[in-house]
Amino acid sequence: MARRVAIVGTGHSRFGVRYDVSIPELAFEAIREAVNEAGIGFDDIELVVVGNAGGWSSEPLPAIVVNEYAGLSGKATLRVEAACSTGSAAIKTARDAIASGDADIALAIGVEKMNESPTPTVVEFIGRAGNYFWEFENFGLTFPGYYALYATSYMFQYGAREEDFCSVAVKNHYYASMNPKAHFPRKISLEDCMRSRYVAWPIKLLDSSPITDGAAAVILASEEIAYKITDSPVWIEAIGAASDTSNISKRTTFTSLEAARLAAQRAYKKSGLDSESIVKNLDLAEVHDCFTIAEIMAYEDLGFVKRGEGYKLAREGQTYIGGLIPVNLSGGLKAKGHPIGATGVSMAVDITRQLLGRVEKGRQAEIRHGRGLAHNIGGTGHYAYVTIYSLSKPRGD
Amino acid sequence: MARRVAIVGTGHSRFGVRYDVSIPELAFEAIREAVNEAGIGFDDIELVVVGNAGGWSSEPLPAIVVNEYAGLSGKATLRVEAACSTGSAAIKTARDAIASGDADIALAIGVEKMNESPTPTVVEFIGRAGNYFWEFENFGLTFPGYYALYATSYMFQYGAREEDFCSVAVKNHYYASMNPKAHFPRKISLEDCMRSRYVAWPIKLLDSSPITDGAAAVILASEEIAYKITDSPVWIEAIGAASDTSNISKRTTFTSLEAARLAAQRAYKKSGLDSESIVKNLDLAEVHDCFTIAEIMAYEDLGFVKRGEGYKLAREGQTYIGGLIPVNLSGGLKAKGHPIGATGVSMAVDITRQLLGRVEKGRQAEIRHGRGLAHNIGGTGHYAYVTIYSLSKPRGD
Repeated sequence: MARRVAIVGTGHSRFGVRYDVSIPELAFEAIREAVNEAGIGFDDIELVVVGNAGGWSSEPLPAIVVNEYAGLSGKATLRVEAACSTGSAAIKTARDAIASGDADIALAIGVEKMNESPTPTVVEFIGRAGNYFWEFENFGLTFPGYYALYATSYMFQYGAREEDFCSVAVKNHYYASMNPKAHFPRKISLEDCMRSRYVAWPIKLLDSSPITDGAAAVILASEEIAYKITDSPVWIEAIGAASDTSNISKRTTFTSLEAARLAAQRAYKKSGLDSESIVKNLDLAEVHDCFTIAEIMAYEDLGFVKRGEGYKLAREGQTYIGGLIPVNLSGGLKAKGHPIGATGVSMAVDITRQLLGRVEKGRQAEIRHGRGLAHNIGGTGHYAYVTIYSLSKPRGD
Repeated sequence: MARRVAIVGTGHSRFGVRYDVSIPELAFEAIREAVNEAGIGFDDIELVVVGNAGGWSSEPLPAIVVNEYAGLSGKATLRVEAACSTGSAAIKTARDAIASGDADIALAIGVEKMNESPTPTVVEFIGRAGNYFWEFENFGLTFPGYYALYATSYMFQYGAREEDFCSVAVKNHYYASMNPKAHFPRKISLEDCMRSRYVAWPIKLLDSSPITDGAAAVILASEEIAYKITDSPVWIEAIGAASDTSNISKRTTFTSLEAARLAAQRAYKKSGLDSESIVKNLDLAEVHDCFTIAEIMAYEDLGFVKRGEGYKLAREGQTYIGGLIPVNLSGGLKAKGHPIGATGVSMAVDITRQLLGRVEKGRQAEIRHGRGLAHNIGGTGHYAYVTIYSLSKPRGD
């Protein structure tokens, strides 16, 4: 990487059903907080990358209205989309612009308002982001159905039980209960989850992430500027990105996402970390738990454990604080919420605050290695972005 | 700029009404040509940036289907959108990734299929990309209306006539007649244009760019790789980007696009070119002539002439080959066509081929400075990207 890039400010709206705000107002909740935290002026921002999957409202140019409301008209700007990994793509786009020397300070803002979808149902609309032509239009597959296929395959292959999936939901709700920005800041019991109604067997309502409105923002700066702005930069150590066929009939396995595995390997290679002992280098991870089975697959795709052993981490509570590797201390997509374009940025915000020891007591990880990982998936594994954040300045070229 | 980045391959589909192909098929026409021209393998591409404004079809993840059809599944990828300047945003995103050291070879592909729009009318759908909330929903303004406001202001302020606007259309159709990829590869006369029906006075049908399907692609490479691939790299010398309010009631002028002026100044500053004598450094320009008035405003926003004198360039034929500065030798948006996400990439393709002396006789510019400029606008001036391409390797940091 030509120039090192750090996060110097973070902002996060309240996640939830936000009929009270428009898209630009929602975005501004996060932007204002990030700019204030960085202690910069709006004029200092040179580039604004807006992560928004869009399609939920009739507003076709979200980047423009977000910038205008925030007083950022005039800046270089664009919108990026990578399905549910849009937020991570926005961070990468802003990171690349700074690392290339094109800008010194950039804002990556992810925002999504999903609850006002004009389409028949939100689930139908999201369903189009599977494999539209064959699997949605012809077979009617939507996302709970896709992840139910993954879950049944996983149960059959490795002997996981529905309780194992629900244990992920219990953990994530437990940590969300301490996160005031979460969509569902409350605990649930294993029984609550197991008794919740089936959405697509074996996936139940409480195995599923909610339809959330929200925004998250990070201010990124070049090394030189970062040190002028803050005493506590959090560095983007490496980003690995990958993609895969949308057509699950072409996938070779339903118990792993090849794009996630590839993205992780690319990120580990770029950071110089040993993929065989990755958990020994991380203090925490935020992973893409759109459904509870997805978190278990992530454990394996990221190399935290061997293939087929992810469910044991969940069963044994090894992804709580104090376990092998704490995962989704924010509450995850499951309980913090999943406003598509904001999710990847929200992961960055939470990991940054974790590394700096600034989150609520009870969900604060012990920081020993000074390093956290974000795993963000788009579609049913179409896109994957794995981003590693670190307190230590990454090696140069 | 940390690492220099060059275009090492270009591809361009036939522009027009393309009911004969799907989005990924259309994209592949351009991708295949670009990969072949670069003489690389598909495996050599590390990153694919897909420029697609979208919303025309029910396909929500165009980047994924484009990659999959082209055999590029697995690559790092994302979709970018900056309204009608989407293609330039895609090039900048790919350029930044290479300049930052994140990738050595990247593909920027712009593609749009507009003629199968499921919305009531295409003009209505595009109209939403003005100022949606106030100007579209409340006042019914669509793009011909916006540019008619610009045209009437310009006529009133500077004394331009409808014939001056039409002279732009005549020139662009003249050059399109020699471009086999153009949507309308045929000449028109000044009378044809003047007699065409009004769309929104003083804008007539033949002052307007058509609704076009098309794709264009460029392969970008780092300096080290570029020299291994080709003897004739065309360098991205500088990119200037800017934005503006969508709300024209907040604009201070209707005869200039502030974002375009800003983007140009940023590009000139980055390239080290003197903005006062910019035409002396350029062999040609491709500018955003969505309507003929837009080309005349571009002459001024880019500093080719003083404010209020752009129409004289058109009137005097100074933007033909042999004049002060040849503009839109491809046929421009007006006659080559304007498939939104592809347009900025199409500009890059044509300028590259011009600089290398590879376009059709009759529309080949004389190359003396080895430098061409692309001016790409989004919305009614919401976005602007000005990109300078050069045969000479740009200065380093």
